[in-house]
Amino acid sequence: MKITEKDIDDLPKNPANYTALTPLGFLERAALVHPHRPSLIHGSLRYTWHDTYARCRRLASALLSRSVGAGSTVAVIAPNVPALYEAHFGVPMAGAVINAINIRLNASTISFLLGHSSSAVIMVDQEFFMLADEALQILAKESKSNYNPPIMIVIADESCDPKVLQYALGRGAIEYEKFLESGDPEYPWKPPQDEWHSIALGYTSGTTASPKGVVLHHRGAYLMALSNAVIWGMNEGAIYLWTLPMFHCNGWCFTWALAALCGTSICLRQVTAKAVYSAIANHGVTHFCAAPVVLNTIVNAPQNETILPLPHIVNVMTAGASPPASVLMAMTRHGFRVTHTYGLSETYGPSTVCAWKPEWDTLPPENQARLNARQGVRYVALEGLEVVNTQDMKPVPADGTTIGEIVFRGNIVMKGYLRNPKANAEAFANGWYHSGDLAVKHPDGYIEIKDRSKDIIISGGENISSVEVENFLYQHPAILEAAVVARSDEQWGESPCAFVNLKENIEKSDEQRMAEDIMKFCRATLPRYWVPKSVVFGPLPKTATGKVQKHLLRDKAKAMGPLMKSKL
Amino acid sequence: MKITEKDIDDLPKNPANYTALTPLGFLERAALVHPHRPSLIHGSLRYTWHDTYARCRRLASALLSRSVGAGSTVAVIAPNVPALYEAHFGVPMAGAVINAINIRLNASTISFLLGHSSSAVIMVDQEFFMLADEALQILAKESKSNYNPPIMIVIADESCDPKVLQYALGRGAIEYEKFLESGDPEYPWKPPQDEWHSIALGYTSGTTASPKGVVLHHRGAYLMALSNAVIWGMNEGAIYLWTLPMFHCNGWCFTWALAALCGTSICLRQVTAKAVYSAIANHGVTHFCAAPVVLNTIVNAPQNETILPLPHIVNVMTAGASPPASVLMAMTRHGFRVTHTYGLSETYGPSTVCAWKPEWDTLPPENQARLNARQGVRYVALEGLEVVNTQDMKPVPADGTTIGEIVFRGNIVMKGYLRNPKANAEAFANGWYHSGDLAVKHPDGYIEIKDRSKDIIISGGENISSVEVENFLYQHPAILEAAVVARSDEQWGESPCAFVNLKENIEKSDEQRMAEDIMKFCRATLPRYWVPKSVVFGPLPKTATGKVQKHLLRDKAKAMGPLMKSKL
Repeated sequence: MKITEKDIDDLPKNPANYTALTPLGFLERAALVHPHRPSLIHGSLRYTWHDTYARCRRLASALLSRSVGAGSTVAVIAPNVPALYEAHFGVPMAGAVINAINIRLNASTISFLLGHSSSAVIMVDQEFFMLADEALQILAKESKSNYNPPIMIVIADESCDPKVLQYALGRGAIEYEKFLESGDPEYPWKPPQDEWHSIALGYTSGTTASPKGVVLHHRGAYLMALSNAVIWGMNEGAIYLWTLPMFHCNGWCFTWALAALCGTSICLRQVTAKAVYSAIANHGVTHFCAAPVVLNTIVNAPQNETILPLPHIVNVMTAGASPPASVLMAMTRHGFRVTHTYGLSETYGPSTVCAWKPEWDTLPPENQARLNARQGVRYVALEGLEVVNTQDMKPVPADGTTIGEIVFRGNIVMKGYLRNPKANAEAFANGWYHSGDLAVKHPDGYIEIKDRSKDIIISGGENISSVEVENFLYQHPAILEAAVVARSDEQWGESPCAFVNLKENIEKSDEQRMAEDIMKFCRATLPRYWVPKSVVFGPLPKTATGKVQKHLLRDKAKAMGPLMKSKL
Repeated sequence: MKITEKDIDDLPKNPANYTALTPLGFLERAALVHPHRPSLIHGSLRYTWHDTYARCRRLASALLSRSVGAGSTVAVIAPNVPALYEAHFGVPMAGAVINAINIRLNASTISFLLGHSSSAVIMVDQEFFMLADEALQILAKESKSNYNPPIMIVIADESCDPKVLQYALGRGAIEYEKFLESGDPEYPWKPPQDEWHSIALGYTSGTTASPKGVVLHHRGAYLMALSNAVIWGMNEGAIYLWTLPMFHCNGWCFTWALAALCGTSICLRQVTAKAVYSAIANHGVTHFCAAPVVLNTIVNAPQNETILPLPHIVNVMTAGASPPASVLMAMTRHGFRVTHTYGLSETYGPSTVCAWKPEWDTLPPENQARLNARQGVRYVALEGLEVVNTQDMKPVPADGTTIGEIVFRGNIVMKGYLRNPKANAEAFANGWYHSGDLAVKHPDGYIEIKDRSKDIIISGGENISSVEVENFLYQHPAILEAAVVARSDEQWGESPCAFVNLKENIEKSDEQRMAEDIMKFCRATLPRYWVPKSVVFGPLPKTATGKVQKHLLRDKAKAMGPLMKSKL
């Protein structure tokens, strides 16, 4: 008496039981459920969810009235201000794709991005107008007769130089609030017909190569928003501080998660330890995301800038690099609850989490920090995570020592790179997305990054994990930040070269003594060949998202020439 | 410089970036992340997530080895025991569909369901074996030569009569643990190829008509599981008490939500106030779901069965009928945090929620209870909720008084009814799922049920909401439960007839006096024509899920004959 498969499965989709997944519906819901709750707070500016929904619909309607819709890209160059948040809803409500651009890029890179994405509109924060203007001039020059000037919108801000606003208007830019006024606050937007429709484009930060345009879809943004909430235990009404730039992978999709949770966003034009602590005190911040470098700043802030002990538990999600154990321990001691995640622009932001286990509660802080510094397990919305031998795609044994490449598979993996079939073929080889990150799998199934392929130092035929040397350097009492790259070495092929930023400046004349002290410190514990043979002092170059730009350090190391045998 | 839509959207799905949504992956993840954490606790029995994953894979493998897979239905007749939980994963892992059957149905109804669903396997709890056996005998007789006996599996339980187990084995049933032993604990299950594939079949409780088979899919079950967590603020590691039957709409999809949260299920064979309180005390229960009738039992329990004040906050989700304000207030006073939701089998369980607003915090308890007794707003995973005039499908004004029908649209609306094209056409008319429930929309956008179409009483041409009369009756100090239906009335056409269950039994001779007292109580506040003109005492007939079976009461009222004019 078997039922036929047809009977039980042949109930077709219809308008009542199938809708394309999209995070845009979260906004409509937030405006219905909590119309009077603050959605965005920026200095003295305060919007409610009712306001935000109306403003986003105005934006969509104003864009469409200028023929910016399906197939258009809208670039935004702005720090964490309300307009950038609004663009995450208003732009896709018009059917267009948001391209949030890193504000710390230079004009020529931005000109490349604007050209590559064919952005039809550029929304630019007043502080960055000159940068955008310069980028467009480069683009105009390079495009020659093909140049179609985009619509320029300037987001005015009283805290910025008024002359720049005058200049922008003179250049034909429309002021953002004026632009909104031209739109309909009740514009009847529709979800996309297909949840595979693109919602966002974001360029990789380019630590390794020229920027690639990562394309994300509505389905993934929806799933990632809910998954973020479930993974982090971030509940309805959360108060979220924007330390993480929204232009970094759409703020790891927390832009959309906050609408799902009817939460409140506290905007920040500039991230300082003082600003973070005062947002916690004044707005009751419950959650923020930050790269380890920001955590470092927070725990090393002068006491008069802190509000320790914290008045309530503050949840911190960190990713972007393995947080040094010393930083994790200090955060915990100060009352922050740190969730360590890992991911890439290509995976909508964090897509693995070092899920805390109850059995760790009673371990010594050092062990806790060591366990929590691992990249962990897959996100709820990521269906596949493996560490594989790329030769045969077989998973490495869960032994904590065999290194393989981290590969991803599932609904929070990007659609692909824009206009880059070659990169897509490589990235999606063998049915998995290849991260380029090298890791081990521990016996408990948690993965731990050992290095990016490019960051491995090969000395005398032995692999050295630059990350592990860096983690060790952080334990030196004088070191604030450290990054290690390969330097060409006459005797060993390559040897570790440490770039070190000290907590306090020292005299040029003391550098040699400090370098020797650091090497001695390493020699006491590390395998001899892991000990940095060169130490260079000074601040580290970083991307906008706090990632150390190792390629620049590699360039520096190269310029230093090979380490001579005699020096050893 | 417009980008083509093709460029930005023509990045195709591939195995790395697209996977069918399914809640089954939550189980694999729970077993990886928290292998040692209890998944299920049932009396002295305790399984970990490692165990549960292995047992579910055994079940899938054992079913497949008997050719039970895609296109098969597996019926389960059991209270909230671990085997029923396991079937929610093991059955769909085999590609089959789980049909959890209400244990309080009689043999002839069960025989109808087994025949209608063509169940290939029947898993039955030892306590209910005789019932299943009788149902199969009816089915065999009615099917005549077409009868294909299903595979019978008996779930043995030491607390049940051992003779029944012997009888079951004699009838050819396989013991559940034996059946599992025949399966592979590492069976390499695969997600469905299509997320629209059916995962569950559940029959409506039949308060109004003959049971209809509601078919649900993997996509909806996945989205509902995450949505339940986000709506309720139910976090990783939640401890959930199974007061709500799993056979009721797959436990409102909390079966699957608990795997997503790596939480712990406390099973209960029988729900009593004492059992609920002792689970809170012994297992640290954080969440449970229950119909208002169960809440009523909990707040009216004798003091020696309670553990008040509660040792920690316990979150309660209620649905199924509007909870009377008095019950809501008592729950809150006892320290329970009640979330009021509303939904149907056709919407995967709760699909609206009376989302609490911060501005209600300072209101008097009566006002809070009144606001919280409303059905509220749409769930995160439900895209459309409206109250419409079914004549023209236009939304009713948000005035709190105009009555319309509640209609749903979105990803947590069922695929349809099994083998019932006529019911599907009616249910999905005009692109919405029609609930048959009548409601108003308040100015704040929250909906409130006024009645099911059938429950409206029309007296002298005026509509009376039986629900409102019931809510009022609950305020009478002697009344434990009340249900109101229409009774034929010589003068007015219909008049309200109240069926009342008192907190304490009274003598037959005192009934008339009590009936008059109740009418007098109503007359002091209600419109005269709303006052019940007939009052009948005794326990109320209910479905297994605690819904009052109004059709039975309507039959009783009919048997009473019309109310004579002289009696007024």
